[in-house]
Amino acid sequence: MYEGIIQDLIDEFGRLPGIGPKSAQRITFHIVQSQSADVTRLAELLATVRERVRFCTQCGNVSEQELCSICRDARRDAGLICVVEEPKDVVAIERTRQFRGLYHVLGGAISPIDGVGPDDLNITQLMRRLADTEVREVILATDPNLEGEATATYLTRLLKTLEVPVSRLASGLPVGGDLEFADEITLGRAFEGRLTVS
Amino acid sequence: MYEGIIQDLIDEFGRLPGIGPKSAQRITFHIVQSQSADVTRLAELLATVRERVRFCTQCGNVSEQELCSICRDARRDAGLICVVEEPKDVVAIERTRQFRGLYHVLGGAISPIDGVGPDDLNITQLMRRLADTEVREVILATDPNLEGEATATYLTRLLKTLEVPVSRLASGLPVGGDLEFADEITLGRAFEGRLTVS
Repeated sequence: MYEGIIQDLIDEFGRLPGIGPKSAQRITFHIVQSQSADVTRLAELLATVRERVRFCTQCGNVSEQELCSICRDARRDAGLICVVEEPKDVVAIERTRQFRGLYHVLGGAISPIDGVGPDDLNITQLMRRLADTEVREVILATDPNLEGEATATYLTRLLKTLEVPVSRLASGLPVGGDLEFADEITLGRAFEGRLTVS
Repeated sequence: MYEGIIQDLIDEFGRLPGIGPKSAQRITFHIVQSQSADVTRLAELLATVRERVRFCTQCGNVSEQELCSICRDARRDAGLICVVEEPKDVVAIERTRQFRGLYHVLGGAISPIDGVGPDDLNITQLMRRLADTEVREVILATDPNLEGEATATYLTRLLKTLEVPVSRLASGLPVGGDLEFADEITLGRAFEGRLTVS
């Protein structure tokens, strides 16, 4: 145990996700030895982010304004909506530069084990949004794991009532990977989804 | 990339030791979704620690006062000084409850590869301290790695001039470990340092 506030800061850092007690200690000593201005900047930024960042009222993505920068962008195709679990998925898809539509961020996936049901997700807003606007296609891009699949299946059933075309991202071998290291489910999906090339 | 200050905070967290870009992103989203009061507490604590925590003028340990709590404690044996690399080593040794003397924190170890020489460490203060006070034993407790050994060797030579008895922590098999998994250097040290038991 350290003296007073040093231990307090170690404890606070240890409460952040993915930071164990050793890391928390290392970061705290880094802070003690940092330039005062750097620490002030971090402290102020923390407070500012918490104060100013909120969720886009249309898509649920993080935003500094009522609508996020993607929903505000008139050049995006409002007829395509890609449904993802988290804001970081939006960033991952934006990096591909292949999708020019809008997003809908659920804020998680259905997971009975963690006590997350459909009501805990941004689903009512999605249904309202689809009822209000003319949409050509809803692309389900939840994670390819148990929770993501369950969420996609649930949404597929729900969306049938709206008669909107629904698609899912392809499963298959990751590009740059080795076939022999692919698990059998991925390899099975790659077979199911095989494309005719000639 | 995220919008403005969200990315700024991810970047700031990413600059802390041991936090990669993925962790920085996870922590930032945790902050966005945390209670405002929790974030304020972390931000204030950061600023307070940087402002109030300094290094003990006697031993170099972290402290909120001019002398750290160990140097201030009159019950500690001022005739024993244990030399360590970092404040976290003090905490590790205190946890054993076996040592009742004082410490001297070097602030690192000699490492030519990282450009750390003897002048970058708290060594002048150690020599001054030993010249000023009556010390029965100096225990070198630097890390049992290349840098720690080099630092201990350097200090041993330097301390010879003061005619103070100098000792080093024993090397050997870690308690609870398996002999077969010990590396050959550790096992060699365990042989060298073997104790007669009957």
